[in-house]
Amino acid sequence: MSKKLTKRSEDYSKWYNELVVKADLAENSAVRGCMVIKPYGYAIWEKMQKALDEMFKETGHENAYFPLLVPKSLFEAEERNAAGFAKECAVVTHYRLKNNPDKEGKLMVDPNAKLEEELVIRPTSEAIIWNTYKGWIQSYRDLPLLVNQWANVMRWEMRTRLFLRTAEFLWQEGHTAHATEQEAVAETTKMQGVYADFAENFMAMPVVKGVKTESERFAGAKDTYTIEALMQDGKALQAGTSHFLGQNFAEAFDVKFTNKQGKQEYVWASSWGVSTRLIGGLIMTHSDDFGLVLPPKLAPIQVVIVPIYRNEEQLDAISEKANTIVKSLKAKGISVKFDSRDTHKPGWKFAEYELKGVPLRIAMGPRDLENGTLELARRDTLKKESVPQDGIEDRIEGLLVEIQESLYKKALDYRNEHITEVDNFEDFQEVLDSKGGFVSAHWDGTTATEDKIKELTKATIRCIALDAKNEAGKCVYSGAFSKKRVLFAKAY
Amino acid sequence: MSKKLTKRSEDYSKWYNELVVKADLAENSAVRGCMVIKPYGYAIWEKMQKALDEMFKETGHENAYFPLLVPKSLFEAEERNAAGFAKECAVVTHYRLKNNPDKEGKLMVDPNAKLEEELVIRPTSEAIIWNTYKGWIQSYRDLPLLVNQWANVMRWEMRTRLFLRTAEFLWQEGHTAHATEQEAVAETTKMQGVYADFAENFMAMPVVKGVKTESERFAGAKDTYTIEALMQDGKALQAGTSHFLGQNFAEAFDVKFTNKQGKQEYVWASSWGVSTRLIGGLIMTHSDDFGLVLPPKLAPIQVVIVPIYRNEEQLDAISEKANTIVKSLKAKGISVKFDSRDTHKPGWKFAEYELKGVPLRIAMGPRDLENGTLELARRDTLKKESVPQDGIEDRIEGLLVEIQESLYKKALDYRNEHITEVDNFEDFQEVLDSKGGFVSAHWDGTTATEDKIKELTKATIRCIALDAKNEAGKCVYSGAFSKKRVLFAKAY
Repeated sequence: MSKKLTKRSEDYSKWYNELVVKADLAENSAVRGCMVIKPYGYAIWEKMQKALDEMFKETGHENAYFPLLVPKSLFEAEERNAAGFAKECAVVTHYRLKNNPDKEGKLMVDPNAKLEEELVIRPTSEAIIWNTYKGWIQSYRDLPLLVNQWANVMRWEMRTRLFLRTAEFLWQEGHTAHATEQEAVAETTKMQGVYADFAENFMAMPVVKGVKTESERFAGAKDTYTIEALMQDGKALQAGTSHFLGQNFAEAFDVKFTNKQGKQEYVWASSWGVSTRLIGGLIMTHSDDFGLVLPPKLAPIQVVIVPIYRNEEQLDAISEKANTIVKSLKAKGISVKFDSRDTHKPGWKFAEYELKGVPLRIAMGPRDLENGTLELARRDTLKKESVPQDGIEDRIEGLLVEIQESLYKKALDYRNEHITEVDNFEDFQEVLDSKGGFVSAHWDGTTATEDKIKELTKATIRCIALDAKNEAGKCVYSGAFSKKRVLFAKAY
Repeated sequence: MSKKLTKRSEDYSKWYNELVVKADLAENSAVRGCMVIKPYGYAIWEKMQKALDEMFKETGHENAYFPLLVPKSLFEAEERNAAGFAKECAVVTHYRLKNNPDKEGKLMVDPNAKLEEELVIRPTSEAIIWNTYKGWIQSYRDLPLLVNQWANVMRWEMRTRLFLRTAEFLWQEGHTAHATEQEAVAETTKMQGVYADFAENFMAMPVVKGVKTESERFAGAKDTYTIEALMQDGKALQAGTSHFLGQNFAEAFDVKFTNKQGKQEYVWASSWGVSTRLIGGLIMTHSDDFGLVLPPKLAPIQVVIVPIYRNEEQLDAISEKANTIVKSLKAKGISVKFDSRDTHKPGWKFAEYELKGVPLRIAMGPRDLENGTLELARRDTLKKESVPQDGIEDRIEGLLVEIQESLYKKALDYRNEHITEVDNFEDFQEVLDSKGGFVSAHWDGTTATEDKIKELTKATIRCIALDAKNEAGKCVYSGAFSKKRVLFAKAY
């Protein structure tokens, strides 16, 4: 298989699909819409999980695990949530297979093993969790309850794309319970902040923090807070959401607590999640026509060393030096790979690690050994330079920080250049079609206008930015009064 | 709810069930046979995962993720494997719910959303993984392929018990592919060794390494290697298995590679797994009538500090000292909790941490502050002593090591006392009924005898120990020739 990618300028979507497969991140499976996450892709997810999990624990959350399957009667208890997900539910109806009497060696569903009540594979776990919380919460002393779950979920989407939209995906879902509305809202925005922090400081992916309009809200939420990122093709990506659920689930599952005054009250709730979709966002924020570009903090391999040699003797000499460097980099907590495989040529290896987005590449040949130098190449800038071996560890440590910052700055500049204020619908359409990105425009606050704009332009309101200033204006479509701008974009 | 447990001597099974719930480890859910793993129980699983994951990576394995659902046609491809799991399969037949026209606000399975091919929730992933490996393996250069997955699986068991046997459970499953039979067998026994190492050095749970008889083998395996532990009630627990799969799955999924000679050959395979069942084994190896006893290496909280005070002033003084100790213990990597809640009395806290198996408890009162002492209590021996505050961190560090070793030794002594050699069937039955444990006896090697013994005594052959010496003898049941003893036991 050729490692050469379609250029982004030719076909961004094709470039993305090819890159995910060729860089060994993921592939489609035999199950419609479900992906196999390959070891290299999964290693990125592990790095994301580790960083997020630490952030969740630092903010007082504990992990737990709830059942994969949700009885239909529980699933439908919170009606708005159920209505929102009913169309995407994989349903378990039987619990046994048996030999097919008509086909030797084949199996069939055993009609005698039909479940009395169907079970839904969780598309999200509010129902099963709030049904459980009913047993955990009696008094204000049991609150707040701050629980997170790492799990797989399933939403039977009709159009799927690796990482971005798959029928099964991996995620975390936090589900918290609080004594007061104020506390639940504070938790919701706090976790939005944690997500923004993670996106910007680990993924080097700038995000806008905002709140969703009613029509884009999570099914069953009172408010959905979001972080919205901008991809290189000018389309937005919803990267994480945090929902203030009010007392909806407490009412649906009858979860009450005795407050300090001895009175029974319904519990207030939040839920929040990010998923393997983030890997799609990571790819589309930084990568280029040569392959992945990974921020050092999430790169499974941060530094690769490739020896250039003609014979065993040369390899031995290079290996000795390389192993010293490997050892001292590891002592600094830097992940490094010395690729001395003799099955592949250096040129092949260079292309391979470029494709896989390893932030720094060292090449060492016999001449370098003589001169006490090595060749150091940056994946982000594709620049190479010959540098002294002495002090290479400190140089690398510094460069990894520099690359992380530089990737963020580049993405931030791009994002900022792609927030365009417009004040009439002609400009609105023009900007969307030619430039893309976020369009900052006044909106009259009605779902009718929102729907009409979506129908005409495919753009949706990504969010009302938390830092949007009050500014009287006229709706870009209806001309009606508006008190602040919102961000529109075409989105993944 | 009373925290008092049924005594083990009264009803071991009841003691176990109560302990799991009262110590906040897990509880039954609304879904038949599926459990909720509560934060304290999940924290033990996280510690197990971390240790195992490191061991897998040190032995060259990478993590990946494969789909939850397996198309029926793939599931049935390896017939022995399919036959072994068909009766326990949860089956997805539909992908959508819709409003029930007859019941306002209720949902029903949409008959128009029936899948063309049913999907099975993975009971184990050999089928979906080997179908994927077909695309990953072409040449000997692609081998060995050493992949592990952390995942949930589902087996529709009729009789379930928290942790020990649940319809859904969490586990890891390694799936490796090799160029030669020898390499695949070496991998299989290597991973059995990793499991034994983990069981003994982290769980402080001694195990016998052995191989299963044909009738106890994993469905589709050529050989199943096992680690078998002994619980306090004299019943055995299969704690982990590692399977040599031969070329069964390679043949079923047509996975061939070109060897160094340019010839096409089927690939050799292993698979291996341990699950949340280990938590059940951990509980039943060490715990007592007062609650959990956890080995320090897997205890979510290793040390708890409880202040004894009458007023704010005393609490402040104790807190100051306690926080110094907390800080220096944390610096040593010891997990410590200072429980200064004013909602619960010291006596309640003592009972709570005893129930939860925290290895070391420190109590500090005003008198201790005056004298520069504190009270240190060991959970395993229930012994308390007054010790100087000076040097407490080193003492604790040493004690945690001592407790870990002491728990292992105690369990090993118990296990060794409960391996009984018997040479006739009367003794066999007598030992099983009165003493329990492993019965080491000669067996004629036939499934007929094995079945008959199981029918008469409920004991099964747990394994043929790897270190069983050759010793000619007569089968304890049939009197026929036998060349080595095997280990029988009643088992979970």
